[in-house]
Amino acid sequence: MKITVIGSGNVATHLARALFEAGHTILQIWSRSPGHASDLARRVGAAPLTDTGKISPDADLYIFSVKDDALPEVIGRMPETGGVWVHTAGSLSMELFASRKADYGVFYPLQTFSRNREPSFEAIPLFIEGSNPETGAMLEELAASLSRCVYRMPGEKRMRLHLAAVFACNFVNHLYALSAEIIEKEDIPFEVLLPLIGETAAKVTDMAPVAAQTGPAIRGDESVMRKHLTLIGDARTREIYRLLSESIAELTKRNLLLT
Amino acid sequence: MKITVIGSGNVATHLARALFEAGHTILQIWSRSPGHASDLARRVGAAPLTDTGKISPDADLYIFSVKDDALPEVIGRMPETGGVWVHTAGSLSMELFASRKADYGVFYPLQTFSRNREPSFEAIPLFIEGSNPETGAMLEELAASLSRCVYRMPGEKRMRLHLAAVFACNFVNHLYALSAEIIEKEDIPFEVLLPLIGETAAKVTDMAPVAAQTGPAIRGDESVMRKHLTLIGDARTREIYRLLSESIAELTKRNLLLT
Repeated sequence: MKITVIGSGNVATHLARALFEAGHTILQIWSRSPGHASDLARRVGAAPLTDTGKISPDADLYIFSVKDDALPEVIGRMPETGGVWVHTAGSLSMELFASRKADYGVFYPLQTFSRNREPSFEAIPLFIEGSNPETGAMLEELAASLSRCVYRMPGEKRMRLHLAAVFACNFVNHLYALSAEIIEKEDIPFEVLLPLIGETAAKVTDMAPVAAQTGPAIRGDESVMRKHLTLIGDARTREIYRLLSESIAELTKRNLLLT
Repeated sequence: MKITVIGSGNVATHLARALFEAGHTILQIWSRSPGHASDLARRVGAAPLTDTGKISPDADLYIFSVKDDALPEVIGRMPETGGVWVHTAGSLSMELFASRKADYGVFYPLQTFSRNREPSFEAIPLFIEGSNPETGAMLEELAASLSRCVYRMPGEKRMRLHLAAVFACNFVNHLYALSAEIIEKEDIPFEVLLPLIGETAAKVTDMAPVAAQTGPAIRGDESVMRKHLTLIGDARTREIYRLLSESIAELTKRNLLLT
Protein backbone atom coordinates (compact mmCIF):
# COMPACT_ATOMS: atom_id res chain seq x y z
CA MET A 1 0.00 0.00 0.00
CA LYS A 2 1.18 3.56 -0.75
CA ILE A 3 0.93 5.64 2.40
CA THR A 4 1.52 9.30 3.29
CA VAL A 5 1.99 10.21 6.95
CA ILE A 6 0.89 13.64 8.21
CA GLY A 7 2.85 14.24 11.42
CA SER A 8 6.24 13.32 12.90
CA GLY A 9 5.58 12.80 16.63
CA ASN A 10 6.00 9.56 18.55
CA VAL A 11 2.91 7.82 17.13
CA ALA A 12 3.65 8.96 13.56
CA THR A 13 7.28 7.86 13.85
CA HIS A 14 6.63 4.39 15.26
CA LEU A 15 3.70 3.74 12.94
CA ALA A 16 5.55 4.90 9.80
CA ARG A 17 8.51 2.67 10.66
CA ALA A 18 6.31 -0.33 11.37
CA LEU A 19 4.43 0.14 8.07
CA PHE A 20 7.71 0.53 6.19
CA GLU A 21 9.11 -2.62 7.80
CA ALA A 22 5.91 -4.51 6.93
CA GLY A 23 6.62 -3.80 3.26
CA HIS A 24 4.37 -0.81 2.57
CA THR A 25 5.61 2.20 0.63
CA ILE A 26 5.76 5.45 2.54
CA LEU A 27 5.39 8.15 -0.12
CA GLN A 28 5.65 11.36 1.89
CA ILE A 29 6.09 12.58 5.46
CA TRP A 30 4.59 15.96 6.28
CA SER A 31 5.60 17.90 9.38
CA ARG A 32 5.51 21.55 10.40
CA SER A 33 9.19 21.10 11.37
CA PRO A 34 11.55 20.57 8.36
CA GLY A 35 14.04 18.73 10.59
CA HIS A 36 11.47 16.28 11.92
CA ALA A 37 10.02 15.70 8.44
CA SER A 38 13.40 14.84 6.92
CA ASP A 39 14.57 12.74 9.90
CA LEU A 40 11.56 10.47 9.71
CA ALA A 41 11.36 10.54 5.89
CA ARG A 42 14.97 9.38 5.62
CA ARG A 43 14.31 6.40 7.87
CA VAL A 44 11.32 5.17 5.84
CA GLY A 45 12.47 6.04 2.32
CA ALA A 46 9.89 8.81 1.91
CA ALA A 47 9.97 12.41 0.70
CA PRO A 48 9.81 15.08 3.43
CA LEU A 49 7.33 17.98 3.18
CA THR A 50 6.42 21.05 5.20
CA ASP A 51 3.91 22.48 2.72
CA THR A 52 0.53 20.71 2.76
CA GLY A 53 -0.03 22.04 -0.77
CA LYS A 54 2.67 19.64 -2.02
CA ILE A 55 1.02 16.51 -0.65
CA SER A 56 0.60 14.08 -3.55
CA PRO A 57 -2.97 12.96 -4.36
CA ASP A 58 -1.76 9.46 -5.31
CA ALA A 59 -1.47 7.63 -1.96
CA ASP A 60 -3.90 4.87 -1.03
CA LEU A 61 -3.92 6.06 2.57
CA TYR A 62 -3.21 9.32 4.43
CA ILE A 63 -2.51 8.84 8.13
CA PHE A 64 -3.03 11.98 10.23
CA SER A 65 -1.04 11.69 13.42
CA VAL A 66 -0.81 15.20 14.85
CA LYS A 67 -1.89 16.69 18.20
CA ASP A 68 -5.65 16.36 18.67
CA ASP A 69 -6.05 20.13 18.89
CA ALA A 70 -4.19 20.65 15.60
CA LEU A 71 -6.09 18.07 13.55
CA PRO A 72 -9.03 20.24 12.32
CA GLU A 73 -6.65 22.91 11.05
CA VAL A 74 -4.40 20.38 9.28
CA ILE A 75 -7.43 18.75 7.64
CA GLY A 76 -8.57 22.20 6.50
CA ARG A 77 -5.27 22.80 4.74
CA MET A 78 -5.20 19.45 2.89
CA PRO A 79 -5.46 19.45 -0.91
CA GLU A 80 -7.94 17.16 -2.65
CA THR A 81 -6.58 13.59 -2.80
CA GLY A 82 -7.68 10.08 -3.66
CA GLY A 83 -7.43 7.24 -1.16
CA VAL A 84 -8.57 7.09 2.44
CA TRP A 85 -7.96 9.55 5.27
CA VAL A 86 -7.54 8.23 8.83
CA HIS A 87 -6.41 9.63 12.15
CA THR A 88 -4.74 7.78 15.04
CA ALA A 89 -6.43 9.52 17.98
CA GLY A 90 -8.25 7.64 20.71
CA SER A 91 -10.64 10.42 21.61
CA LEU A 92 -11.53 12.04 18.27
CA SER A 93 -14.49 11.18 16.09
CA MET A 94 -13.76 10.07 12.52
CA GLU A 95 -16.47 12.51 11.41
CA LEU A 96 -13.85 15.28 11.54
CA PHE A 97 -13.07 14.15 7.97
CA ALA A 98 -16.68 14.00 6.77
CA SER A 99 -16.90 17.45 5.18
CA ARG A 100 -13.79 16.80 3.06
CA LYS A 101 -13.88 13.13 2.10
CA ALA A 102 -16.18 10.13 1.59
CA ASP A 103 -13.65 7.44 2.53
CA TYR A 104 -12.20 7.98 5.97
CA GLY A 105 -11.70 6.27 9.30
CA VAL A 106 -9.61 5.69 12.40
CA PHE A 107 -6.47 3.64 12.98
CA TYR A 108 -5.83 3.75 16.74
CA PRO A 109 -2.87 1.84 18.23
CA LEU A 110 -3.38 1.27 21.97
CA GLN A 111 0.17 1.80 23.18
CA THR A 112 2.44 4.43 24.74
CA PHE A 113 5.19 5.50 22.36
CA SER A 114 8.41 7.23 23.35
CA ARG A 115 11.53 8.11 21.47
CA ASN A 116 14.25 5.41 21.80
CA ARG A 117 11.81 2.58 22.57
CA GLU A 118 10.72 0.22 19.83
CA PRO A 119 7.67 -1.72 20.98
CA SER A 120 6.84 -4.69 18.78
CA PHE A 121 3.74 -3.77 16.76
CA GLU A 122 2.74 -7.42 16.47
CA ALA A 123 1.34 -7.35 20.03
CA ILE A 124 -0.16 -3.85 19.94
CA PRO A 125 -3.96 -3.86 19.78
CA LEU A 126 -5.16 -1.80 16.80
CA PHE A 127 -8.68 -0.35 16.80
CA ILE A 128 -10.12 0.59 13.45
CA GLU A 129 -13.25 2.25 12.16
CA GLY A 130 -14.24 3.04 8.58
CA SER A 131 -16.81 5.40 7.05
CA ASN A 132 -18.10 2.59 4.81
CA PRO A 133 -17.64 -1.20 4.51
CA GLU A 134 -14.89 -1.00 1.86
CA THR A 135 -12.86 1.45 3.92
CA GLY A 136 -13.31 -0.68 7.04
CA ALA A 137 -12.16 -3.79 5.17
CA MET A 138 -9.14 -1.96 3.72
CA LEU A 139 -8.09 -0.69 7.17
CA GLU A 140 -8.61 -4.10 8.71
CA GLU A 141 -6.34 -5.69 6.12
CA LEU A 142 -3.69 -3.03 6.68
CA ALA A 143 -3.91 -3.44 10.46
CA ALA A 144 -3.55 -7.21 10.10
CA SER A 145 -0.28 -6.65 8.22
CA LEU A 146 1.11 -5.07 11.41
CA SER A 147 -0.55 -6.73 14.39
CA ARG A 148 -2.27 -9.92 15.42
CA CYS A 149 -4.71 -7.93 17.62
CA VAL A 150 -7.07 -6.03 15.34
CA TYR A 151 -10.50 -4.86 16.45
CA ARG A 152 -13.28 -2.89 14.78
CA MET A 153 -14.66 -0.40 17.26
CA PRO A 154 -17.11 2.50 16.96
CA GLY A 155 -15.97 5.95 18.10
CA GLU A 156 -18.00 6.20 21.32
CA LYS A 157 -16.54 2.94 22.58
CA ARG A 158 -13.03 3.88 21.49
CA MET A 159 -13.24 7.11 23.52
CA ARG A 160 -14.00 5.12 26.67
CA LEU A 161 -11.15 2.75 25.86
CA HIS A 162 -8.87 5.77 25.54
CA LEU A 163 -10.10 7.06 28.91
CA ALA A 164 -9.25 3.68 30.45
CA ALA A 165 -5.80 3.86 28.84
CA VAL A 166 -5.21 7.26 30.48
CA PHE A 167 -5.78 5.58 33.87
CA ALA A 168 -3.78 2.42 33.09
CA CYS A 169 -0.83 4.17 31.45
CA ASN A 170 -0.57 7.98 31.78
CA PHE A 171 -1.76 8.13 35.40
CA VAL A 172 0.17 4.99 36.34
CA ASN A 173 3.36 6.51 34.95
CA HIS A 174 2.69 9.66 36.95
CA LEU A 175 2.39 7.59 40.14
CA TYR A 176 5.81 6.13 39.26
CA ALA A 177 7.05 9.74 38.97
CA LEU A 178 5.58 10.69 42.36
CA SER A 179 7.13 7.61 43.98
CA ALA A 180 10.49 8.52 42.39
CA GLU A 181 10.25 12.02 43.89
CA ILE A 182 9.55 10.60 47.34
CA ILE A 183 12.53 8.25 47.46
CA GLU A 184 15.02 10.36 45.54
CA LYS A 185 14.67 12.96 48.31
CA GLU A 186 15.98 10.19 50.60
CA ASP A 187 18.85 9.36 48.22
CA ILE A 188 17.29 5.97 47.51
CA PRO A 189 17.67 5.12 43.80
CA PHE A 190 14.43 4.64 41.83
CA GLU A 191 15.78 1.24 40.68
CA VAL A 192 14.84 -0.40 44.01
CA LEU A 193 11.18 0.04 43.02
CA LEU A 194 11.54 -1.72 39.65
CA PRO A 195 10.92 -5.32 40.84
CA LEU A 196 7.77 -4.09 42.61
CA ILE A 197 6.61 -2.15 39.54
CA GLY A 198 7.28 -5.16 37.30
CA GLU A 199 5.43 -7.61 39.55
CA THR A 200 2.47 -5.21 39.98
CA ALA A 201 2.06 -5.10 36.18
CA ALA A 202 2.70 -8.84 35.80
CA LYS A 203 0.10 -9.82 38.45
CA VAL A 204 -2.81 -8.45 36.43
CA THR A 205 -1.90 -10.71 33.52
CA ASP A 206 -3.23 -13.62 35.57
CA MET A 207 -5.66 -12.13 38.04
CA ALA A 208 -8.20 -9.29 37.97
CA PRO A 209 -6.84 -6.02 39.41
CA VAL A 210 -9.41 -6.07 42.25
CA ALA A 211 -8.10 -9.50 43.28
CA ALA A 212 -4.49 -8.29 43.08
CA GLN A 213 -5.00 -5.31 45.40
CA THR A 214 -2.70 -5.15 48.45
CA GLY A 215 -1.59 -2.38 50.82
CA PRO A 216 -2.82 -0.29 53.75
CA ALA A 217 -6.03 0.99 52.11
CA ILE A 218 -7.49 -2.46 51.38
CA ARG A 219 -6.43 -3.72 54.83
CA GLY A 220 -8.13 -0.67 56.37
CA ASP A 221 -4.86 0.09 58.14
CA GLU A 222 -5.74 3.59 59.41
CA SER A 223 -2.59 4.14 61.45
CA VAL A 224 -0.26 3.54 58.48
CA MET A 225 -2.38 5.79 56.27
CA ARG A 226 -2.33 8.58 58.87
CA LYS A 227 1.45 8.25 59.17
CA HIS A 228 1.86 8.36 55.38
CA LEU A 229 -0.23 11.52 55.12
CA THR A 230 2.09 13.26 57.60
CA LEU A 231 5.10 12.29 55.42
CA ILE A 232 3.74 13.93 52.25
CA GLY A 233 4.79 17.56 52.00
CA ASP A 234 2.81 18.57 48.93
CA ALA A 235 -0.91 19.30 49.49
CA ARG A 236 -2.04 17.98 46.10
CA THR A 237 -0.07 14.75 46.48
CA ARG A 238 -1.62 14.33 49.95
CA GLU A 239 -5.07 14.73 48.40
CA ILE A 240 -4.18 12.14 45.71
CA TYR A 241 -3.16 9.73 48.50
CA ARG A 242 -6.40 10.35 50.39
CA LEU A 243 -8.68 10.02 47.36
CA LEU A 244 -7.02 6.88 45.99
CA SER A 245 -7.14 5.23 49.42
CA GLU A 246 -10.85 6.05 49.74
CA SER A 247 -11.45 4.78 46.22
CA ILE A 248 -9.70 1.47 47.01
CA ALA A 249 -11.87 0.99 50.12
CA GLU A 250 -15.01 1.89 48.15
CA LEU A 251 -14.26 -0.43 45.20
CA THR A 252 -13.45 -3.27 47.60
CA LYS A 253 -16.77 -2.78 49.42
CA ARG A 254 -18.67 -2.72 46.11
CA ASN A 255 -16.98 -5.95 45.00
CA LEU A 256 -17.68 -7.68 48.31
CA LEU A 257 -21.36 -6.76 47.96
CA LEU A 258 -21.41 -8.23 44.45
CA THR A 259 -19.84 -11.57 45.35
CA MET B 1 19.15 -20.96 60.81
CA LYS B 2 16.18 -22.08 62.94
CA ILE B 3 13.25 -19.77 62.29
CA THR B 4 9.75 -19.41 63.72
CA VAL B 5 7.19 -17.46 61.71
CA ILE B 6 4.42 -15.56 63.51
CA GLY B 7 1.67 -15.06 60.93
CA SER B 8 0.28 -16.83 57.88
CA GLY B 9 -0.71 -14.05 55.46
CA ASN B 10 0.80 -13.45 52.04
CA VAL B 11 4.13 -12.05 53.27
CA ALA B 12 4.52 -14.74 55.94
CA THR B 13 3.70 -17.48 53.43
CA HIS B 14 6.04 -16.36 50.68
CA LEU B 15 8.86 -15.56 53.09
CA ALA B 16 8.56 -18.88 54.99
CA ARG B 17 8.65 -20.80 51.72
CA ALA B 18 11.64 -18.87 50.41
CA LEU B 19 13.54 -19.42 53.69
CA PHE B 20 12.66 -23.12 53.65
CA GLU B 21 13.82 -23.44 50.03
CA ALA B 22 17.06 -21.63 50.88
CA GLY B 23 17.83 -24.42 53.37
CA HIS B 24 16.75 -22.84 56.65
CA THR B 25 14.73 -24.79 59.22
CA ILE B 26 11.26 -23.47 59.91
CA LEU B 27 10.49 -24.62 63.46
CA GLN B 28 6.95 -23.35 64.03
CA ILE B 29 4.22 -21.39 62.28
CA TRP B 30 1.86 -19.45 64.52
CA SER B 31 -1.48 -18.17 63.24
CA ARG B 32 -4.78 -17.21 64.88
CA SER B 33 -6.42 -19.51 62.32
CA PRO B 34 -5.67 -23.25 62.86
CA GLY B 35 -6.31 -23.96 59.15
CA HIS B 36 -3.88 -21.31 57.96
CA ALA B 37 -1.24 -22.37 60.50
CA SER B 38 -1.34 -26.01 59.43
CA ASP B 39 -1.54 -25.24 55.69
CA LEU B 40 1.62 -23.18 55.77
CA ALA B 41 3.37 -25.40 58.36
CA ARG B 42 2.85 -28.48 56.19
CA ARG B 43 4.47 -26.78 53.20
CA VAL B 44 7.62 -25.81 55.10
CA GLY B 45 8.02 -28.83 57.39
CA ALA B 46 7.13 -26.86 60.54
CA ALA B 47 4.81 -27.39 63.50
CA PRO B 48 1.57 -25.37 63.45
CA LEU B 49 0.47 -23.37 66.52
CA THR B 50 -2.43 -21.17 67.50
CA ASP B 51 -1.37 -20.64 71.12
CA THR B 52 1.46 -18.12 71.53
CA GLY B 53 2.22 -19.78 74.88
CA LYS B 54 3.51 -22.83 72.99
CA ILE B 55 6.05 -20.93 70.94
CA SER B 56 9.44 -22.59 71.50
CA PRO B 57 12.24 -20.39 72.94
CA ASP B 58 14.87 -22.19 70.84
CA ALA B 59 14.70 -20.48 67.44
CA ASP B 60 17.47 -18.19 66.20
CA LEU B 61 14.95 -15.84 64.64
CA TYR B 62 11.26 -15.00 65.15
CA ILE B 63 9.69 -13.29 62.13
CA PHE B 64 6.52 -11.35 62.97
CA SER B 65 4.46 -10.95 59.83
CA VAL B 66 0.99 -9.99 60.99
CA LYS B 67 -1.21 -6.97 60.24
CA ASP B 68 0.46 -3.76 61.42
CA ASP B 69 -2.43 -3.01 63.79
CA ALA B 70 -2.17 -6.47 65.39
CA LEU B 71 1.58 -6.45 65.98
CA PRO B 72 1.70 -4.76 69.44
CA GLU B 73 -0.87 -7.21 70.82
CA VAL B 74 0.94 -10.25 69.38
CA ILE B 75 4.25 -9.02 70.80
CA GLY B 76 2.55 -8.58 74.18
CA ARG B 77 1.44 -12.22 74.20
CA MET B 78 4.85 -13.64 73.29
CA PRO B 79 6.67 -15.83 75.84
CA GLU B 80 10.31 -15.12 76.67
CA THR B 81 12.58 -16.55 73.97
CA GLY B 82 16.20 -16.49 72.85
CA GLY B 83 17.19 -15.36 69.37
CA VAL B 84 16.20 -12.24 67.47
CA TRP B 85 12.74 -10.76 66.89
CA VAL B 86 12.01 -8.98 63.58
CA HIS B 87 8.94 -7.71 61.81
CA THR B 88 8.39 -7.36 58.05
CA ALA B 89 6.44 -4.10 58.02
CA GLY B 90 7.49 -1.13 55.90
CA SER B 91 5.94 1.51 58.13
CA LEU B 92 6.55 0.26 61.68
CA SER B 93 9.48 1.17 63.90
CA MET B 94 11.63 -1.70 65.17
CA GLU B 95 11.35 -0.08 68.62
CA LEU B 96 8.01 -1.85 69.05
CA PHE B 97 10.15 -4.76 70.31
CA ALA B 98 12.36 -2.69 72.63
CA SER B 99 10.45 -3.24 75.86
CA ARG B 100 10.57 -7.03 75.41
CA LYS B 101 13.93 -7.83 73.83
CA ALA B 102 17.51 -6.59 73.35
CA ASP B 103 18.08 -8.18 69.93
CA TYR B 104 15.49 -7.13 67.39
CA GLY B 105 15.15 -5.60 63.98
CA VAL B 106 13.31 -5.36 60.68
CA PHE B 107 13.30 -7.59 57.61
CA TYR B 108 11.26 -5.76 54.97
CA PRO B 109 10.83 -7.31 51.50
CA LEU B 110 9.81 -4.64 48.97
CA GLN B 111 7.34 -6.62 46.91
CA THR B 112 3.60 -7.23 46.51
CA PHE B 113 2.63 -10.77 47.45
CA SER B 114 -0.55 -12.54 46.41
CA ARG B 115 -1.76 -16.08 46.77
CA ASN B 116 -0.95 -18.20 43.67
CA ARG B 117 1.96 -16.04 42.52
CA GLU B 118 5.51 -17.05 43.31
CA PRO B 119 7.82 -14.11 42.76
CA SER B 120 11.50 -15.03 42.71
CA PHE B 121 13.02 -13.79 45.98
CA GLU B 122 16.42 -13.47 44.36
CA ALA B 123 15.40 -10.16 42.75
CA ILE B 124 13.35 -8.79 45.65
CA PRO B 125 15.06 -5.90 47.46
CA LEU B 126 15.30 -6.68 51.20
CA PHE B 127 15.68 -3.81 53.67
CA ILE B 128 17.06 -4.68 57.07
CA GLU B 129 17.69 -2.91 60.35
CA GLY B 130 19.11 -4.30 63.61
CA SER B 131 19.03 -3.05 67.20
CA ASN B 132 22.81 -3.66 67.48
CA PRO B 133 25.70 -4.49 65.12
CA GLU B 134 25.55 -8.28 65.72
CA THR B 135 21.83 -8.39 64.99
CA GLY B 136 22.30 -6.26 61.88
CA ALA B 137 25.07 -8.56 60.63
CA MET B 138 22.99 -11.67 61.31
CA LEU B 139 20.01 -10.26 59.43
CA GLU B 140 22.20 -9.14 56.57
CA GLU B 141 23.61 -12.65 56.22
CA LEU B 142 20.15 -14.17 56.30
CA ALA B 143 18.87 -11.68 53.72
CA ALA B 144 21.83 -12.47 51.45
CA SER B 145 20.83 -16.15 51.52
CA LEU B 146 17.55 -15.14 49.82
CA SER B 147 18.24 -12.13 47.62
CA ARG B 148 21.03 -10.39 45.76
CA CYS B 149 19.54 -6.98 46.67
CA VAL B 150 20.08 -6.41 50.39
CA TYR B 151 20.15 -2.94 51.95
CA ARG B 152 20.55 -1.67 55.51
CA MET B 153 18.08 1.14 56.06
CA PRO B 154 17.00 3.08 59.15
CA GLY B 155 13.31 3.17 60.04
CA GLU B 156 12.53 6.78 59.02
CA LYS B 157 13.90 6.19 55.55
CA ARG B 158 12.14 2.82 55.24
CA MET B 159 8.80 4.49 56.02
CA ARG B 160 9.27 6.89 53.10
CA LEU B 161 10.26 3.97 50.88
CA HIS B 162 7.07 2.21 51.94
CA LEU B 163 5.08 5.35 51.11
CA ALA B 164 6.69 5.39 47.64
CA ALA B 165 5.76 1.71 47.25
CA VAL B 166 2.12 2.52 48.02
CA PHE B 167 2.15 4.93 45.05
CA ALA B 168 4.12 2.65 42.71
CA CYS B 169 2.21 -0.54 43.52
CA ASN B 170 -1.02 -0.25 45.54
CA PHE B 171 -2.27 2.92 43.84
CA VAL B 172 -1.05 1.75 40.44
CA ASN B 173 -3.00 -1.48 40.84
CA HIS B 174 -6.09 0.51 41.79
CA LEU B 175 -5.76 2.56 38.59
CA TYR B 176 -5.70 -0.76 36.72
CA ALA B 177 -8.93 -1.64 38.57
CA LEU B 178 -10.57 1.67 37.64
CA SER B 179 -9.54 1.22 33.99
CA ALA B 180 -10.99 -2.32 34.07
CA GLU B 181 -14.30 -0.93 35.37
CA ILE B 182 -14.45 1.64 32.58
CA ILE B 183 -13.94 -0.80 29.71
CA GLU B 184 -15.79 -3.77 31.12
CA LYS B 185 -18.94 -1.59 31.10
CA GLU B 186 -18.37 -1.42 27.32
CA ASP B 187 -17.87 -5.20 27.05
CA ILE B 188 -14.24 -4.68 26.13
CA PRO B 189 -12.07 -7.33 27.82
CA PHE B 190 -9.40 -6.05 30.24
CA GLU B 191 -6.81 -8.06 28.26
CA VAL B 192 -6.62 -5.41 25.53
CA LEU B 193 -4.94 -3.11 28.08
CA LEU B 194 -2.20 -5.60 29.00
CA PRO B 195 0.35 -4.67 26.28
CA LEU B 196 -0.05 -1.01 27.32
CA ILE B 197 0.31 -1.85 31.03
CA GLY B 198 3.38 -3.99 30.32
CA GLU B 199 5.09 -1.34 28.18
CA THR B 200 4.29 1.42 30.71
CA ALA B 201 6.09 -0.57 33.41
CA ALA B 202 8.92 -1.60 31.06
CA LYS B 203 9.61 1.98 29.91
CA VAL B 204 10.70 3.11 33.38
CA THR B 205 13.38 0.43 33.45
CA ASP B 206 15.30 2.53 30.93
CA MET B 207 14.08 6.08 31.35
CA ALA B 208 12.98 8.22 34.29
CA PRO B 209 9.20 8.30 34.79
CA VAL B 210 9.05 12.05 34.09
CA ALA B 211 10.72 11.42 30.71
CA ALA B 212 8.30 8.56 29.95
CA GLN B 213 5.14 10.61 30.53
CA THR B 214 2.66 10.70 27.63
CA GLY B 215 -1.05 11.50 27.33
CA PRO B 216 -3.46 14.43 27.26
CA ALA B 217 -2.35 16.03 30.57
CA ILE B 218 1.29 16.48 29.56
CA ARG B 219 0.27 17.67 26.08
CA GLY B 220 -2.08 20.17 27.74
CA ASP B 221 -4.88 18.78 25.60
CA GLU B 222 -7.81 20.50 27.34
CA SER B 223 -10.51 19.35 24.94
CA VAL B 224 -9.71 15.63 25.44
CA MET B 225 -9.56 16.09 29.23
CA ARG B 226 -12.93 17.89 29.24
CA LYS B 227 -14.43 15.08 27.16
CA HIS B 228 -12.99 12.42 29.47
CA LEU B 229 -14.45 14.14 32.54
CA THR B 230 -17.92 13.98 30.97
CA LEU B 231 -17.49 10.22 30.42
CA ILE B 232 -16.75 9.43 34.10
CA GLY B 233 -19.94 8.73 36.03
CA ASP B 234 -18.49 8.48 39.53
CA ALA B 235 -17.71 11.80 41.28
CA ARG B 236 -14.67 10.47 43.19
CA THR B 237 -13.16 8.94 40.04
CA ARG B 238 -13.72 12.26 38.24
CA GLU B 239 -11.86 14.03 41.05
CA ILE B 240 -9.00 11.49 40.76
CA TYR B 241 -8.81 12.22 37.02
CA ARG B 242 -8.76 15.97 37.64
CA LEU B 243 -6.14 15.85 40.42
CA LEU B 244 -3.78 13.47 38.62
CA SER B 245 -4.00 15.56 35.43
CA GLU B 246 -3.17 18.73 37.40
CA SER B 247 -0.34 16.93 39.15
CA ILE B 248 1.15 15.80 35.81
CA ALA B 249 1.05 19.37 34.50
CA GLU B 250 2.59 20.69 37.72
CA LEU B 251 5.41 18.11 37.85
CA THR B 252 6.20 18.72 34.18
CA LYS B 253 6.41 22.48 34.79
CA ARG B 254 8.68 21.92 37.81
CA ASN B 255 11.00 19.69 35.76
CA LEU B 256 11.16 22.14 32.88
CA LEU B 257 12.20 24.87 35.32
CA LEU B 258 14.94 22.62 36.68
CA THR B 259 16.47 21.72 33.29
